[in-house]
Amino acid sequence: MPGDSIGKLFRVTNWGESHGPMIGAVVEGCPSGMELSVDDIQPALDRRRPGQSKIVSQRKESDTVQIVSGLVDGKTTGTPISLVIVNQDQKSKDYSNIADLYRPSHGDFTYQQKYGIRDIAGGGRTSARVTAPSVAAGAIAEKILVQRHQIKITAWVESVHNIVCDVVPETVTREQVECNIVRCPDPEVAEQMIARIEQVRKQGDSLGGVVNCCIQGVPLGLGEPVFDKLEAALAHAMLSINASKGFEFGSGFAGTLMKGSKHNDQFVSEDDRIVTTTNNSGGIQAGISNGMSINFRVAFKPVATLLQKQQTVNKQGESVEYQVHGRHDPCVLPRAVPIVEAMAALVLCDHSLRQFG
Amino acid sequence: MPGDSIGKLFRVTNWGESHGPMIGAVVEGCPSGMELSVDDIQPALDRRRPGQSKIVSQRKESDTVQIVSGLVDGKTTGTPISLVIVNQDQKSKDYSNIADLYRPSHGDFTYQQKYGIRDIAGGGRTSARVTAPSVAAGAIAEKILVQRHQIKITAWVESVHNIVCDVVPETVTREQVECNIVRCPDPEVAEQMIARIEQVRKQGDSLGGVVNCCIQGVPLGLGEPVFDKLEAALAHAMLSINASKGFEFGSGFAGTLMKGSKHNDQFVSEDDRIVTTTNNSGGIQAGISNGMSINFRVAFKPVATLLQKQQTVNKQGESVEYQVHGRHDPCVLPRAVPIVEAMAALVLCDHSLRQFG
Amino acid sequence: MPGDSIGKLFRVTNWGESHGPMIGAVVEGCPSGMELSVDDIQPALDRRRPGQSKIVSQRKESDTVQIVSGLVDGKTTGTPISLVIVNQDQKSKDYSNIADLYRPSHGDFTYQQKYGIRDIAGGGRTSARVTAPSVAAGAIAEKILVQRHQIKITAWVESVHNIVCDVVPETVTREQVECNIVRCPDPEVAEQMIARIEQVRKQGDSLGGVVNCCIQGVPLGLGEPVFDKLEAALAHAMLSINASKGFEFGSGFAGTLMKGSKHNDQFVSEDDRIVTTTNNSGGIQAGISNGMSINFRVAFKPVATLLQKQQTVNKQGESVEYQVHGRHDPCVLPRAVPIVEAMAALVLCDHSLRQFG
Amino acid sequence: MPGDSIGKLFRVTNWGESHGPMIGAVVEGCPSGMELSVDDIQPALDRRRPGQSKIVSQRKESDTVQIVSGLVDGKTTGTPISLVIVNQDQKSKDYSNIADLYRPSHGDFTYQQKYGIRDIAGGGRTSARVTAPSVAAGAIAEKILVQRHQIKITAWVESVHNIVCDVVPETVTREQVECNIVRCPDPEVAEQMIARIEQVRKQGDSLGGVVNCCIQGVPLGLGEPVFDKLEAALAHAMLSINASKGFEFGSGFAGTLMKGSKHNDQFVSEDDRIVTTTNNSGGIQAGISNGMSINFRVAFKPVATLLQKQQTVNKQGESVEYQVHGRHDPCVLPRAVPIVEAMAALVLCDHSLRQFG
Repeated sequence: MPGDSIGKLFRVTNWGESHGPMIGAVVEGCPSGMELSVDDIQPALDRRRPGQSKIVSQRKESDTVQIVSGLVDGKTTGTPISLVIVNQDQKSKDYSNIADLYRPSHGDFTYQQKYGIRDIAGGGRTSARVTAPSVAAGAIAEKILVQRHQIKITAWVESVHNIVCDVVPETVTREQVECNIVRCPDPEVAEQMIARIEQVRKQGDSLGGVVNCCIQGVPLGLGEPVFDKLEAALAHAMLSINASKGFEFGSGFAGTLMKGSKHNDQFVSEDDRIVTTTNNSGGIQAGISNGMSINFRVAFKPVATLLQKQQTVNKQGESVEYQVHGRHDPCVLPRAVPIVEAMAALVLCDHSLRQFG
Repeated sequence: MPGDSIGKLFRVTNWGESHGPMIGAVVEGCPSGMELSVDDIQPALDRRRPGQSKIVSQRKESDTVQIVSGLVDGKTTGTPISLVIVNQDQKSKDYSNIADLYRPSHGDFTYQQKYGIRDIAGGGRTSARVTAPSVAAGAIAEKILVQRHQIKITAWVESVHNIVCDVVPETVTREQVECNIVRCPDPEVAEQMIARIEQVRKQGDSLGGVVNCCIQGVPLGLGEPVFDKLEAALAHAMLSINASKGFEFGSGFAGTLMKGSKHNDQFVSEDDRIVTTTNNSGGIQAGISNGMSINFRVAFKPVATLLQKQQTVNKQGESVEYQVHGRHDPCVLPRAVPIVEAMAALVLCDHSLRQFG
Repeated sequence: MPGDSIGKLFRVTNWGESHGPMIGAVVEGCPSGMELSVDDIQPALDRRRPGQSKIVSQRKESDTVQIVSGLVDGKTTGTPISLVIVNQDQKSKDYSNIADLYRPSHGDFTYQQKYGIRDIAGGGRTSARVTAPSVAAGAIAEKILVQRHQIKITAWVESVHNIVCDVVPETVTREQVECNIVRCPDPEVAEQMIARIEQVRKQGDSLGGVVNCCIQGVPLGLGEPVFDKLEAALAHAMLSINASKGFEFGSGFAGTLMKGSKHNDQFVSEDDRIVTTTNNSGGIQAGISNGMSINFRVAFKPVATLLQKQQTVNKQGESVEYQVHGRHDPCVLPRAVPIVEAMAALVLCDHSLRQFG
Repeated sequence: MPGDSIGKLFRVTNWGESHGPMIGAVVEGCPSGMELSVDDIQPALDRRRPGQSKIVSQRKESDTVQIVSGLVDGKTTGTPISLVIVNQDQKSKDYSNIADLYRPSHGDFTYQQKYGIRDIAGGGRTSARVTAPSVAAGAIAEKILVQRHQIKITAWVESVHNIVCDVVPETVTREQVECNIVRCPDPEVAEQMIARIEQVRKQGDSLGGVVNCCIQGVPLGLGEPVFDKLEAALAHAMLSINASKGFEFGSGFAGTLMKGSKHNDQFVSEDDRIVTTTNNSGGIQAGISNGMSINFRVAFKPVATLLQKQQTVNKQGESVEYQVHGRHDPCVLPRAVPIVEAMAALVLCDHSLRQFG
């Protein structure tokens, strides 16, 4: 059964493979009458694309998006918006050395077993390249959210390996995040992260880390109990991102070390609004946004592609050694930031439409 | 838009409130011709129900389930299975003291804001009581999974507050887990957990913790890229449980501290099967089960209901002090174990039907 | 894959069998804060139930509905509304004479082949009895539609066999329809229909006919191109009713005999509203309601249950003769009227929520 | 809420406008490992495209389809198949004469009211041009059905205006249908139809008619009670086609004139199979296919676009006269044949996957 769509009222259907002719997405549910152009979308793609800095994959892709339906005179018509990105760098690289084996912790083995066939070139649909259309769709969602609710979504790299940046979520701005190539709002910690990534890249190894995301301006009332709680929808979206391993919101796992008397967020009145003095709830109570900032963290594993010799087995189950060369991300974290933001935007936009029509 | 269903091919629609006449669930997608009776379901409910031990809520509910459709001569017919539980303990308790105020970190505020009305008695639909029908449905899912794949789902309390139990997931049995009232497989650690819960209960305070879950016998191929990855479906289900705050699978957040060369799970042949020597993937690669054990952890916050005086505001935004008395769980962890197992069963059953028909 | 739900934002999940303990439906998506009681629902069920007149089945069922969730103090809370009807007349009738054979034009054969098992008592889930929960849910939908849009849904028996009633759809009232037991608004034609049904019943035979339905007060804008056009949703709902064989709206099949110059509905201004001078469009253009009356017709076949000797085969494929006795409807048309109205209400309510939130 | 997808396990998401850069569809759920190329799809598009004969629209469109995802080495991979058709004939025709008015029985008025904006060029998304991607997707569905079940889907023009062709459905072949430009299997009647269409075209008028469709080789067991009955799914699909006004299956509306003793389809054994001696059931009993031929009819209204002067109103509600010139179909019936076949294929393929996995 297909799993290529996300959202119910704002629905994105993602298609395409790493080295196919095109990748794209169909975006349904965008309200009519909204001004929209590629200028609203391209900047997000530019933050996700390869080749943007020395610490990410050097694949040459401009990721130039085209909007091929759903617009008239620069405005949305309420019909599906089809987004298309032509793959440029499909060079006839020779994948024959890995065609017959299962790279560790990649999708080679599971795709082969599930589908009986797999697209070896660039990993086919297992490639993180498929997040590009989702990022494009997320840019549309974000525009809707800003227009409706003045929402501000900001994600950043909180840690790379054991190098951790400690900031107050509500104070982080996207400008700060974009100040350096690793997308960590603390410039000093960013330098350390970059150095560590470069060092590990030279070793042909890879690193993981954590992305933190804070969303301000969320309206009260998003989320649908009991199974479509807002945190459940966010967890679903985040765990659908390639290489993600965990999700927590508000106090998260650390909250299990608190007592209830400390963990409960006290309500107070402030400027005719009811707010909480702390935000262990991460902006969500009983599955519904309470008007405070939504805050969550996503863990990403170290990239599975290494430029080292590795042992594995081939399709026949025989032990083999192999080594890949070429372009890869030694650490997905810098490029994960716009992806986390986009997926959050998709979830919130869907739930905004579910709540407010 | 309604959010009361989970699953696509094995779909559970949950209904009911804490103090309404009944709670229940409609289970669609159960294969026809399977023997089924309340005896398959009641044991799971008995593990979830209140009043089962001194460390959980003393509400008197037998949670006796009835199957009121979908069976003929003790076998499923392929039509919806309607499960009904009559609420017994709906005593006309006086909720007037909390009717006008918003208890901290409960759903009072968000439900009132979202719906403009709320069911105060026992928390209405925000009550963890609504997990009972899901647990009943999960028992049917588990029976299907056992018959199809000999799956074994085992969850346990890994930590309560800062008391942690360290076990090898694959070795834990449900029998071990059921040996003590806190559902921790290490008897010594269990004693400490129970003592801590009792101590905190006397203080009118509450505790959180972590449930670990290991699923053995999972067939290869479950999970649907790119948005219905198996981990995404599990995260969604786990974050829909009341009081849960986080989800991680395999190496999880800790995996961000490893390098790729250490984190990658090496494939080897073993008895004509391809397996991995480590399981940082937690049994899922590229969103699809790889045949290894699925392993994940769920964080639960300390219960929001305290038997202490607390400050909050009323509907008018005025600061008020209040105190509740009576029955409550000082720690949801022991009762969360069968809920986590049930939700995992629902996800796997749905994905088994999606993969194998 | 389950097919027991209808609607996306106003969703009804129907469960139960003819002779099981209960039948019912879960209704999701009802706006919160609406007054609701069984008094809003029971009248519709009374129009559908057996035993209401001499020309319908004499099965004794009061079809008394209970609302067992989703209400507080007589108002909806926005949570699922669970409707339950206890089956009263489950007398241990002996079905052994038909247990092994396939009655012509019933679901015996297809259910047995699809599910490998079937519920013989009263036809199990193939029974028209399963329309009762849908009628109950439809009454809730109708209440919402009346409150939102002052919609007026009126269906009637247009023909029984070759006896046809010719009326102007917009002039028919539910009061007229309820004036006689066959639910035909023309009293003289109604008498003929009743006489024909009685005659055929004595012959142990059965009759079909056509229900016409006219909906006034439909707001502009319902229907979602290109696949969820309003007429497509109505056709889907009508063809899901037991014994229905066809659906047409506006000019329908007869419209194929007109030229475009005659068929086109001319727009004119009237009281500051744009209306059409004719309504061959049946109130729907390009899949979207245009504010004119929605008008459609549904064909129902003659009931398959006959009180005559019939030839068929048994499970072994051997030719057998059989005869049933007892209660049955010689003509479903009178009881189909409230079912058509209910299904129309479900569709319109779902689409009202889709359009207006 | 979006309505651009059809199907649950075999899901087609359709996008694009008449005069946009491209139109297309995303096809999810196609089994992996199936050989597929544009040669499997283009012939169906060629039967639907404009300009194929003198009695259809002379718009110049080759409707050349590209498959831009989901394939490797000519085989499906189980990932979404993205189909793209570049619009060729988007000449900058002047639509200013109709930009401000509502053409009778078109979607101009309802789209403007629903969306507050509309794409005037070629009718935007209301154009029958949007059926092209569905026809392309239907060709994939048909290939799957042929491989799985040797299904044979044959539709033909049964009537144009009052010229009717009377054939035995099971005997009609696609070759016969393709023998003439009106797609009527009786050559003599076809001549009359063509003459009538040409005559009416010269008058600037238009005609409707009926498409009949017979599907042979349908496996037992397709269809999901109670709301996703096979006939309900077919009715939904057929009423979603532009200009369709009615659907009936088996005996249909005419069946209401029969008595049950005549209408019931008697079961008999034949070559170790249980079949019926008549097929008033149209191959579907209790919502499930019974292995006999599925037979249904779809009514299409006379085309709304006329080359005559017509009266209407403009956006301001003022009465205006207008006349369009140029390319149009005086009768959609010949081009509706491959569309009906495609939509039937989509429904059956979805239900084949629902039943058999």
